[in-house]
Amino acid sequence: MDYKKLLKEIKNEVYPLLGNGSVADYIPELANVNPNHFGIELRFLDNTSYSIGDTNIPFSIQSISKVFALTLAIKLVGDKVWKRVGVEPSGNAFNSLVQLEHENGIPRNPFINAGAIVISDIILSELEHPKQELLGFIRKLANNPNIQINKKVALSEKVNGYRNAALANMMKSFGNIKNDIEKVLDLYYCMCSIEMTCDDLSKAFLLYCNHGELPDENVNVISISQTKRLNAIMQTCGFYDEAGEFSFKVGLPGKSGVGGGIVALLPGQFTIAAWSPELNKKGNSILSMKALELFTTKSGLSVF
Amino acid sequence: MDYKKLLKEIKNEVYPLLGNGSVADYIPELANVNPNHFGIELRFLDNTSYSIGDTNIPFSIQSISKVFALTLAIKLVGDKVWKRVGVEPSGNAFNSLVQLEHENGIPRNPFINAGAIVISDIILSELEHPKQELLGFIRKLANNPNIQINKKVALSEKVNGYRNAALANMMKSFGNIKNDIEKVLDLYYCMCSIEMTCDDLSKAFLLYCNHGELPDENVNVISISQTKRLNAIMQTCGFYDEAGEFSFKVGLPGKSGVGGGIVALLPGQFTIAAWSPELNKKGNSILSMKALELFTTKSGLSVF
Amino acid sequence: MDYKKLLKEIKNEVYPLLGNGSVADYIPELANVNPNHFGIELRFLDNTSYSIGDTNIPFSIQSISKVFALTLAIKLVGDKVWKRVGVEPSGNAFNSLVQLEHENGIPRNPFINAGAIVISDIILSELEHPKQELLGFIRKLANNPNIQINKKVALSEKVNGYRNAALANMMKSFGNIKNDIEKVLDLYYCMCSIEMTCDDLSKAFLLYCNHGELPDENVNVISISQTKRLNAIMQTCGFYDEAGEFSFKVGLPGKSGVGGGIVALLPGQFTIAAWSPELNKKGNSILSMKALELFTTKSGLSVF
Amino acid sequence: MDYKKLLKEIKNEVYPLLGNGSVADYIPELANVNPNHFGIELRFLDNTSYSIGDTNIPFSIQSISKVFALTLAIKLVGDKVWKRVGVEPSGNAFNSLVQLEHENGIPRNPFINAGAIVISDIILSELEHPKQELLGFIRKLANNPNIQINKKVALSEKVNGYRNAALANMMKSFGNIKNDIEKVLDLYYCMCSIEMTCDDLSKAFLLYCNHGELPDENVNVISISQTKRLNAIMQTCGFYDEAGEFSFKVGLPGKSGVGGGIVALLPGQFTIAAWSPELNKKGNSILSMKALELFTTKSGLSVF
Repeated sequence: MDYKKLLKEIKNEVYPLLGNGSVADYIPELANVNPNHFGIELRFLDNTSYSIGDTNIPFSIQSISKVFALTLAIKLVGDKVWKRVGVEPSGNAFNSLVQLEHENGIPRNPFINAGAIVISDIILSELEHPKQELLGFIRKLANNPNIQINKKVALSEKVNGYRNAALANMMKSFGNIKNDIEKVLDLYYCMCSIEMTCDDLSKAFLLYCNHGELPDENVNVISISQTKRLNAIMQTCGFYDEAGEFSFKVGLPGKSGVGGGIVALLPGQFTIAAWSPELNKKGNSILSMKALELFTTKSGLSVF
Repeated sequence: MDYKKLLKEIKNEVYPLLGNGSVADYIPELANVNPNHFGIELRFLDNTSYSIGDTNIPFSIQSISKVFALTLAIKLVGDKVWKRVGVEPSGNAFNSLVQLEHENGIPRNPFINAGAIVISDIILSELEHPKQELLGFIRKLANNPNIQINKKVALSEKVNGYRNAALANMMKSFGNIKNDIEKVLDLYYCMCSIEMTCDDLSKAFLLYCNHGELPDENVNVISISQTKRLNAIMQTCGFYDEAGEFSFKVGLPGKSGVGGGIVALLPGQFTIAAWSPELNKKGNSILSMKALELFTTKSGLSVF
Repeated sequence: MDYKKLLKEIKNEVYPLLGNGSVADYIPELANVNPNHFGIELRFLDNTSYSIGDTNIPFSIQSISKVFALTLAIKLVGDKVWKRVGVEPSGNAFNSLVQLEHENGIPRNPFINAGAIVISDIILSELEHPKQELLGFIRKLANNPNIQINKKVALSEKVNGYRNAALANMMKSFGNIKNDIEKVLDLYYCMCSIEMTCDDLSKAFLLYCNHGELPDENVNVISISQTKRLNAIMQTCGFYDEAGEFSFKVGLPGKSGVGGGIVALLPGQFTIAAWSPELNKKGNSILSMKALELFTTKSGLSVF
Repeated sequence: MDYKKLLKEIKNEVYPLLGNGSVADYIPELANVNPNHFGIELRFLDNTSYSIGDTNIPFSIQSISKVFALTLAIKLVGDKVWKRVGVEPSGNAFNSLVQLEHENGIPRNPFINAGAIVISDIILSELEHPKQELLGFIRKLANNPNIQINKKVALSEKVNGYRNAALANMMKSFGNIKNDIEKVLDLYYCMCSIEMTCDDLSKAFLLYCNHGELPDENVNVISISQTKRLNAIMQTCGFYDEAGEFSFKVGLPGKSGVGGGIVALLPGQFTIAAWSPELNKKGNSILSMKALELFTTKSGLSVF
């Protein structure tokens, strides 16, 4: 298949959708992003890659960072992670606080905010320099030493993060946060504020495509079974309140972020990263989602 | 691969788990089932099949019937189904009534009870003899004219079904049930009370494995895209509050019922049906779930 | 004090409020009521009464009937009533179904619909001719043999009562409804459809004003302590989601109905009944509420 | 009536109840209180008082302070208070966070924690030295310059107050907290940690008994209507999830605290303060509640 041509075709089909969504605006740094960016990069397990558009411009990965943080936490403490966070879809976002209260401070899964805050807490307990080590971990996955945390974004997130602070305090009241809340949220906001390109993301996700092994090395970052678990969670919980929709339309495990990025993968075959800042009402990038849908439909490469 | 040997191996490994769960006991007909039954049947798209154990004894398919009913509804009214029922996981069962109230009587997905009741209502509006036609439809999928509704089970379900009646009335108050509640629930309980064997189920599910086409014929029962949608919903919502767990352990779209049956499939390749009446606390068969997990792990045949 | 003059003054002050609310419209019989009716009647324990306006026109007492039904249930089974229904305010109406689910089918108090449905169930278990005996009981309290059930209203209520049927089924699933749901709701809708005048209501409520004794007789219908309990519930739960507002503005125990009626009382002193069909958004009559507020403010006769 | 003898009689009747409850134990300072303390003091509007037991030993007033804080807030900003906090009972404590989320960060009433935190925020915005001025205000009401904040209690409250921090952050996310959360909670915990005696409380509550006027002076602290509002809120919301129970048994507006104190009043007549540290499961003092119930039953002095 001529993948280069396919990506071009996809770009032409999704581009007219521009203007139908709106850029995340809860912090100025995200609100000011140029909404016209679009990029998509496809990478096979043999590291062959195909790309079109803005695939080398870094953007705020936001919730995509939850996948990396979870991977690091699993690497650090193994399956003990699952004593403090569930693996089931959360259903309606509206219920998140009820759910926490009803289920004794155990978040439903590591990709809702409450879950990622617990993951931050786990990392914080295990590492001396958690921010630097998490960043180092991601740089290694993406094989790019220049990946950075955008400190302005991190600060803005923090200043507006009362709802996350409510979640953290609620979980602390149940004993499911061990460290100082301030520090836990600080790490959480830093990870959300990491900036990566489509190129970086397509590389970093090869791990999940390759049974937990970095393609160039012979060591497992996480085990085969842990990787399967991660993919299963991405499939069922990776898209906020649109996991079912994405599962149907795209049919690949993946993760989206309010920065407009989406990364997905077909185990054993390829990763694909897309970016376009305009979001639908559920917080997923309109163009990125459509681009991935077109890719799996046109290529026939999907889970279902 | 020697599938016969593999199934034997699996049976030996799961059999010691007997005694750890309990048979569904909310109605006498289910409570009286012999808990020691176990069967598993694997069927490839070319109709080659491998089986071990009680694969020719009919059991109550219960919620597995929701897949067939949904398929029939889609065949009858197409994508209009999705105006009356969602496609997202429901999260906690505990919240189902709250969710219905909050989301104006639209159930989260067609595999929670509320959703399947709406599907019954749709079928009822479209067919003159809904029970017979639904039964006929399933008989055709399984290529078995002897599949029956167990009327004693249907009656017991009805007599104890106050919670389902509460759901139906709530949805009717929002206008999302069009027919008489009594009739809707009657059809709903009939479909839950259908009895099939592992052999039947492995045949009937070939449809979802084969892009919506019956293998022996050249006609699509439902479209390719509708089949993808169905598989995606099975993947994210097929196992009550254990969809994430199942997605990880088994890695296949599928559906379970409190009669102890589970059917799953790998699109384009095979279906697999298992039966053992003892359930875990979430309502899924312990042995069936473990058997499917062992199958995908040992064979390497899974979505992830 | 010149009570006749006071009532006239009040009428003049509240009359300009006409047109700010809307008549209950969920059933045609209520929707067709002339919105311009207004009446108010004050009755002292010695049976002296003062009235102005439409105090001899019967209207649908709706939820006011819950007070009479509860009184009859207490008369029949005593404090056993409180094993099946609570005595605490329910907070937000929005939560009623959650509350029922969370608290095992025990409604918060007898004045929310779920609670009154349980009261109907209790009456139904105790009496051979529940409708006639309840009606007879109310006729006796009001000393008026002509009080009737409006059967058209009762039928309309039933035809539109899916939410009440949902509540009843939910409670039945917890074992807190003993009789056939159809019959329980039938009695419930009949009591809601009783028609009385302000004159009737001011008489019937003397009981609560007089320690549970009918003023003309020497027998207690219910005990002193049971009457205190009833008044306490009226004070804290009598006005849907405006109990606090009413408690502040009027400062008397009482009960309102969506027919536009409100009855209140000062223990040991007087009863007061008002009627005007236009309701505010919380379902309480705008003019009746204001009239009672003016009465307690101007007369200085209130609990606080 | 011989009130001295009546109080003695009450003491003898309630004392055998000792041992049936448990002292608040979420912070060490409350857990270490001697559970055998008991005191009750009755004070008429003419300042005549009757007391028995430990009525001069200071104890932690806890939630009783919410009445004083609300009074001060009303004195400072008047009815603007009601734009930021409701006046309706909250129903189930379990729902508090759901309620806040559903009603846009506006707490149901000023006596649930969320409501009192908003009141702290209002006071903080208005006063330069909020702690000292609130303390001074209470000292003046009780006519006792020695009333103190127990700083150890305040600190313990804070260290364990994650749930309150969750509430505050949630409300801040809706814009209903204006000041720094740390400062708001600091003031909140200080007010909870004020220590007063039954004697102090019986004096301080005369205000609510006397239409908002301090008995010895001719100035209104708050208006007649504001006092009525306060009494109405105490009646409907003063006893956590037992407002209905208290309203029935005692029949007086009042407020309890987990320190074991309860104060109540009959408008225009008397105040009554009781203290005994052992609490029932709803957090109200068993002996204090029973003592007040006996007082109103034996004296016949109640609202109903």
